[in-house]
Amino acid sequence: MKTTRLEAFSDGVLAIIITIMVLELKVPHAVELSALKPLLPVLLSYVLSFIYIGIYWNNHHHLFQATEQVSGGILWANLYLLFWLSLFPFTTGWIGENGLATIPTAVYGFVLLMAATAYYVLERVIIANEGRDSLVAEAVGRERKAKLSLVLYVAAIPLAFVSPWIAAGLYVFVALLWLIPDPRIERKLENRKE
Amino acid sequence: MKTTRLEAFSDGVLAIIITIMVLELKVPHAVELSALKPLLPVLLSYVLSFIYIGIYWNNHHHLFQATEQVSGGILWANLYLLFWLSLFPFTTGWIGENGLATIPTAVYGFVLLMAATAYYVLERVIIANEGRDSLVAEAVGRERKAKLSLVLYVAAIPLAFVSPWIAAGLYVFVALLWLIPDPRIERKLENRKE
Amino acid sequence: MKTTRLEAFSDGVLAIIITIMVLELKVPHAVELSALKPLLPVLLSYVLSFIYIGIYWNNHHHLFQATEQVSGGILWANLYLLFWLSLFPFTTGWIGENGLATIPTAVYGFVLLMAATAYYVLERVIIANEGRDSLVAEAVGRERKAKLSLVLYVAAIPLAFVSPWIAAGLYVFVALLWLIPDPRIERKLENRKE
Amino acid sequence: MKTTRLEAFSDGVLAIIITIMVLELKVPHAVELSALKPLLPVLLSYVLSFIYIGIYWNNHHHLFQATEQVSGGILWANLYLLFWLSLFPFTTGWIGENGLATIPTAVYGFVLLMAATAYYVLERVIIANEGRDSLVAEAVGRERKAKLSLVLYVAAIPLAFVSPWIAAGLYVFVALLWLIPDPRIERKLENRKE
Repeated sequence: MKTTRLEAFSDGVLAIIITIMVLELKVPHAVELSALKPLLPVLLSYVLSFIYIGIYWNNHHHLFQATEQVSGGILWANLYLLFWLSLFPFTTGWIGENGLATIPTAVYGFVLLMAATAYYVLERVIIANEGRDSLVAEAVGRERKAKLSLVLYVAAIPLAFVSPWIAAGLYVFVALLWLIPDPRIERKLENRKE
Repeated sequence: MKTTRLEAFSDGVLAIIITIMVLELKVPHAVELSALKPLLPVLLSYVLSFIYIGIYWNNHHHLFQATEQVSGGILWANLYLLFWLSLFPFTTGWIGENGLATIPTAVYGFVLLMAATAYYVLERVIIANEGRDSLVAEAVGRERKAKLSLVLYVAAIPLAFVSPWIAAGLYVFVALLWLIPDPRIERKLENRKE
Repeated sequence: MKTTRLEAFSDGVLAIIITIMVLELKVPHAVELSALKPLLPVLLSYVLSFIYIGIYWNNHHHLFQATEQVSGGILWANLYLLFWLSLFPFTTGWIGENGLATIPTAVYGFVLLMAATAYYVLERVIIANEGRDSLVAEAVGRERKAKLSLVLYVAAIPLAFVSPWIAAGLYVFVALLWLIPDPRIERKLENRKE
Repeated sequence: MKTTRLEAFSDGVLAIIITIMVLELKVPHAVELSALKPLLPVLLSYVLSFIYIGIYWNNHHHLFQATEQVSGGILWANLYLLFWLSLFPFTTGWIGENGLATIPTAVYGFVLLMAATAYYVLERVIIANEGRDSLVAEAVGRERKAKLSLVLYVAAIPLAFVSPWIAAGLYVFVALLWLIPDPRIERKLENRKE
């Protein structure tokens, strides 16, 4: 079984998630520039979530380029990741509508944490399937960035109760960490070719 | 006529169905954790329907991997399946909004039953097209799991009037039955290759 | 320029149109079976539009299988068709919400007519591009069914003012005419191969 | 890394954007033809935005046909373009609901400007990646049309405060400029082949 249809389905779901989030930007009835002001936190949370979905899409893309075969387990691990990503529009809307309140900010972090865990599980299932000497196993490596992200999410959730701004700052920081697509797999792929 | 465009279109529809269901999780106006409480049945029904769509996507994927050619009949049998699956967001929302009331639970089962029947029809149309000695015919086999599911759905609908919890339990049970993707076709495909 | 990306984009738009229509089936707040009664015309109009989009998808699929090259004109003729098809969710919702009132029924027919005209234009643009001796030109042929449909739509719009039921009957009749995917192109493709 | 998955993802997002805009055409409760009258500006702004998304899709299609390889930078430049295009449904809805009021018309132009800039950035990132002697670099050329569009958008935004009709006229004019898909790349591609 090849990876093409799994990639196409995931692309479809991610494309819809990214576009559905924009529906939270409700068209205002007023026509003054000030009518956009209450939309500002919605827009900012949309931007952050857009970047996160972009990061997941990029890394997913890299991961499956190094994957040779799809098993039943990989299909379900991928669906499990898509499930948590599908909750982004909800948490983005909640954080956006209430301008960084404590509980929505913590819940936003919880969904980020679950998605990151799901991505980690997906990597492990793929490596278990392809073998420890496979291209993916080599490429994914020690995953320092992934582990750091998990730690920061776990820290951010209780810190949201101290101040939602600290938690939000951590979410932005993790996004910046990942904005550069994973060069490990790209490098390994190039080395292989030589 | 090859199967690629039919698969791409079905993937698109399934990706949208799965993502549209999440729109029923309406963003609450309150910011307390208790604001999520009324959303819990919506979330649970979403999880169940997400798993069902995942199962259909997996089996559809396996089925069309064993299919060589697409006929007009297959196109329509596939659209007939997509029609019933497209009603999942509606029944999921209804069951979720009313916390497992009798009629919504029964209607949810009815749509599950119609989708399962449509999938069965699709299999039969493909087999009629490819011949009784084809890979698909061999792979689909006696379909004990599919027949058991149909029986359980038929039982669940009247049982919803006794208690919606029994019906819901049966829906969960059938989902668990199918969570493992159909190994029959995979096995047959591998045997063929040898 | 090959047809794959145009087909993929059209599939995406058609998949979304078909699924967005189901959003008009608003989840009722009541839990009685009678709560579904006001949804019945919505469901019926959804079924009819679902079949129409299915017909367009099938014929579009056949048409582009016989098309070798895509030009700028074909891209825009295709977008023009998608524009009219994208109005189906609106007219379907309007006809469904008001149970076959005169004006919504006539407007529904007008959009059907415009989509059919757009499809005809698309066929002409493709034939102009591929040449009069091409596979497409031969396959499309005299198009008696397409011309009959146009005549019936033109008749149905004023007849909606006599009785919306006559117009609706004509829309159903045209849908039944087309339910069988166009065998002309399939036949020509097979003849070519021999 | 090849361009196929980036194109598929972009197609998905563009297909959803184009279809989500139609949701602003809210189904009226009345059944008279006059019920469509308040929808006319919504429909007109939908038509304009539909054409704009069509133009972006066409040009994107041409651009990536001349692109050989995808880098991390190209992925993000593409997502940056998709971000601005994803705001079209919002600005289209705002302009449509208020019948060409000053601020919504100016904001519509601002989003057009940002999308055009993002497209320009995407072209530059691709050229930097492929080299100055590449097919893309040659094909994109001096981009007189792109530069003129930017100038017209920049002029339209303040002119919306004089009269929204002037700004809207400029948006329509730029759309007409681009309706013909970019023949430069097509020509260069053909020359190469000879």
